[in-house]
Amino acid sequence: MAAEPTAHQLIAQHRPTLDQALEAIRTRAYWSPHPEHPKAYGENGSLGMAEGKAAFDALLGTRLDLGQPGTDDWVGGEVSPYGIELGVTYPHADIDTLLPAMRAGQRAWRDAGAEIRAVVCLEILKRISDRTHEFAHAVMHTSGQAFMMAFQAGGPHAQDRGLEAVAYAYAEQVRTPDTAEWSKPQGKRDPLALTKQFTPVPRGIALMIGCNTFPTWNGYPGLFASLATGNAVLVKPHPRAVLPLALTVQVAREVLAGAGFDPNLVALAAERPGEGIAKTLATRPEIRIVDYTGSTAFGDWLEANARQAQVYTEKAGVNTVIVESTADYKGMLSNLAFSLSLYSGQMCTTPQNLLIPREGISTDEGHKSYDEVTADLAKSVGGLLGDDARANALLGAIVNPDVKARLEAAAGLGEVALPSRQIENPEFPGAVVRSPLIVKLDGARKYWENGGSDDEAAYMSECFGPVSFAVAVDSAADAVALLRRTTRDKGAMTVGAYTTDEAFEREVQEACLEECAQLSLNLTGGVYVNQTAAFSDFHGSGGNGAANAALCDGAFVANRFRVIEVRREA
Amino acid sequence: MAAEPTAHQLIAQHRPTLDQALEAIRTRAYWSPHPEHPKAYGENGSLGMAEGKAAFDALLGTRLDLGQPGTDDWVGGEVSPYGIELGVTYPHADIDTLLPAMRAGQRAWRDAGAEIRAVVCLEILKRISDRTHEFAHAVMHTSGQAFMMAFQAGGPHAQDRGLEAVAYAYAEQVRTPDTAEWSKPQGKRDPLALTKQFTPVPRGIALMIGCNTFPTWNGYPGLFASLATGNAVLVKPHPRAVLPLALTVQVAREVLAGAGFDPNLVALAAERPGEGIAKTLATRPEIRIVDYTGSTAFGDWLEANARQAQVYTEKAGVNTVIVESTADYKGMLSNLAFSLSLYSGQMCTTPQNLLIPREGISTDEGHKSYDEVTADLAKSVGGLLGDDARANALLGAIVNPDVKARLEAAAGLGEVALPSRQIENPEFPGAVVRSPLIVKLDGARKYWENGGSDDEAAYMSECFGPVSFAVAVDSAADAVALLRRTTRDKGAMTVGAYTTDEAFEREVQEACLEECAQLSLNLTGGVYVNQTAAFSDFHGSGGNGAANAALCDGAFVANRFRVIEVRREA
Repeated sequence: MAAEPTAHQLIAQHRPTLDQALEAIRTRAYWSPHPEHPKAYGENGSLGMAEGKAAFDALLGTRLDLGQPGTDDWVGGEVSPYGIELGVTYPHADIDTLLPAMRAGQRAWRDAGAEIRAVVCLEILKRISDRTHEFAHAVMHTSGQAFMMAFQAGGPHAQDRGLEAVAYAYAEQVRTPDTAEWSKPQGKRDPLALTKQFTPVPRGIALMIGCNTFPTWNGYPGLFASLATGNAVLVKPHPRAVLPLALTVQVAREVLAGAGFDPNLVALAAERPGEGIAKTLATRPEIRIVDYTGSTAFGDWLEANARQAQVYTEKAGVNTVIVESTADYKGMLSNLAFSLSLYSGQMCTTPQNLLIPREGISTDEGHKSYDEVTADLAKSVGGLLGDDARANALLGAIVNPDVKARLEAAAGLGEVALPSRQIENPEFPGAVVRSPLIVKLDGARKYWENGGSDDEAAYMSECFGPVSFAVAVDSAADAVALLRRTTRDKGAMTVGAYTTDEAFEREVQEACLEECAQLSLNLTGGVYVNQTAAFSDFHGSGGNGAANAALCDGAFVANRFRVIEVRREA
Repeated sequence: MAAEPTAHQLIAQHRPTLDQALEAIRTRAYWSPHPEHPKAYGENGSLGMAEGKAAFDALLGTRLDLGQPGTDDWVGGEVSPYGIELGVTYPHADIDTLLPAMRAGQRAWRDAGAEIRAVVCLEILKRISDRTHEFAHAVMHTSGQAFMMAFQAGGPHAQDRGLEAVAYAYAEQVRTPDTAEWSKPQGKRDPLALTKQFTPVPRGIALMIGCNTFPTWNGYPGLFASLATGNAVLVKPHPRAVLPLALTVQVAREVLAGAGFDPNLVALAAERPGEGIAKTLATRPEIRIVDYTGSTAFGDWLEANARQAQVYTEKAGVNTVIVESTADYKGMLSNLAFSLSLYSGQMCTTPQNLLIPREGISTDEGHKSYDEVTADLAKSVGGLLGDDARANALLGAIVNPDVKARLEAAAGLGEVALPSRQIENPEFPGAVVRSPLIVKLDGARKYWENGGSDDEAAYMSECFGPVSFAVAVDSAADAVALLRRTTRDKGAMTVGAYTTDEAFEREVQEACLEECAQLSLNLTGGVYVNQTAAFSDFHGSGGNGAANAALCDGAFVANRFRVIEVRREA
């Protein structure tokens, strides 16, 4: 086994990547150091396809001993949405032992400075990247994502988001110089002169609460933003998606120790079934930062109760696409069909409400009535998923029984434009695979301006899963009004719109600027409203109810540390 | 009257200043565009000493009509701490009319972009700077600061803090480019290509709640940070310190209108006696940002209740100076004497607890016992303030009867090392002028580790005003332990220390880094622990209980706006 690289070797190795990341967040042009193609792995120390699978298989049924202090038990019980039991057990921590142990290494980590912290984080990401194939299976068998998506979103894209957070954290910390000489003229007298030292100091221990559907993609920004700013990080995974984050913690601990830091700067808090330790942890005085992705109810609880901490939440929202007109009817339909199908709509960014004028829309194929648009979209989804192998590759599996139950109930909400289809997965017979359901609803202004309707109750709630609503609105203007209302009352991670009318486009843009929602216009090709690219796209805005932070920007990192000044007479 | 400058003329005029400010916050070297000397004013359109006084005198007894919509009454009743009634009345607003009017101009202000907003803010500051002499009297006769301090802290230093906030706000907004071309390679296929637009959007209306003692210095950072990031700003002054902020609002409205924007982007919310409108305003849904300086009780209330807003608070703290040893005993005593005396200790940064080892300290003048240090400090303060004219020029007036009552009660807390002296002000016979009180207390660890003592109850509370405690501690190590405990439990805006021992200096530094407090070491000359300079020093850390934000850093501005992205296929 080769000797662990020193901090200075890590700088030599990773500083060019850090500089490229810093440049990327300035220009927001395309950039990624993490290959998207599975075949790009297998050389230069990274695991290839077969090796990654073997590494994952070797994990099954084992105890993942992270060497954490205060381990009082071993817990686990993940069952893959594809039906297999993972059988991996993880350390259960005595928090009163673990939290103090996590503080022990903080001084050395703080004193290392922003650059060394950044390159240590980059080394963690590099080693995770080398194991992307192994992580892909871990993400697939906890989130239910299909393999290719688990590979890309759970691998390089998540690593990109982690690296982006490191770049923002580094940039923020070096805005203030390490030292300054301050000399204030005093007329004929000697100037007043001070020497000033500035040190970024961490807030304390950060708690990252992981989610079921995107354990790495949603988890890495907070984890790396906190670690890069000098905090210790306690990772509390979703009980159904422990493995990808436990492996992440394992890698982080190895790299920290190898670089001469205390591995307890990163630790895992796995829990017993029903233990609900997130509430206990989030309100501990040692916890000064919380990152959370999940339900609005618990996100709101954290914001209200974890008052000793900076709380960053991504919660539920209701995403809208307005269909007003298009110059590429087929492209629009296929783009939307893909958006609705990807990972069975189990993305916080998947469109839910498709607002379509009741009298129809103009297209390059002539006028299309509301019923035609809806039927054509249903047909497009049906075509996309007609082949079972392709359907399995796009849809993945339903992540948990709640989503399945919600999907089944949603069929009763209105006229079904496209029923959800049950699809067999020959490789994993236990997988619950379902195609998207599209339900027609009435979004007439007279209802939502006068106390609502059953339809309104449906489309004004997040129905997380493969469910979307084709909502007939009285006019394009009403679509914008309903978009505003939905975003204001329920939040939105994404908004899409299709229009060939410049004035209408400006109206939609204005609505998104005022309601603070990220807008994709007229997507008809290979980019989808539910996908964002690190270093270029913001994920969420942090300005509407769906999330109080955006991935990633200055606000996401600036309050994870403070700058302490020591001044003396020069 | 000359024509109002256009936005482009403002760029030509102010961009160089903005660039210098941006450079200053990067290097943190000394810089200020606002002259400190009263004689520097009176030319190039600025008011000279006599003109400023005349302008202030002309305001007395008048109605300050700001031309605000929804004015339903005229209110006022400021009485100067120097005894004169100002007799100025201000618009009282019907909030349900004023708040909607403040939103009307937000779109144009947002669309103007970061640079034009910055130079409009700089023009506001320039016109305020030109009236520094007038503002000095307004600050003096509301805060009770002596003229020279009101002139400098209320004038150029406050303007510096405002400009610093504009610079941070500008820098933060331009971190993301206006547009980006994103092109992602797809192997042999055409790349995926998107055009992206990024727009900084405001959160909404910001509420700036002013304080009695530093209406402009503490008010300008929040006001200008919010305005420069595109928000409208409602200014709710302290009822005893309305005039400086009302004049500020007046200038801002003039400049906004002159530059073609809606003057209602900045408005005043003066209140009737006892009306307590801050609570009502702070929880209005339109209010999305709150800046507050004042009591811990109300700051905590705002943080807990104004949940729809980003809340930035500066509250009370207990500031410590550790006296362990010194190589310049006289310099230390005179520096501390000045710190305790300036504005009668009515600064959030004034030292309160002077921790002195019971067995005394080593100095360049030999060993000094605790009693000697205390007596010599008392003598130094006495000497500094021996001359009544000089005392008046340093102390200013007691800002309100609460401070006077607290001072009188504090004399009963322990042995008095230096009694507070009543000083006549021949120019303003109504002024309540008092020299600092120093009380000796016992800070033995056995008390504060075992349930406290009356002495502990005294030094562990903020006693705002000209009161400090010479606290005898058992050892230098105990001083650090008490510093840590005080900062952790009560917060601190400043920490000072005197020591010639390098190991002890490191101990104090480590305590400040861990407890997140700003440290001044061995100040013996013309810089004082209670003074911070914009562009170089941070005011507070935002990391202990005294304040949740620092003036000024990225975190202070980054969450006052969000960035909205609109993306389309290229």
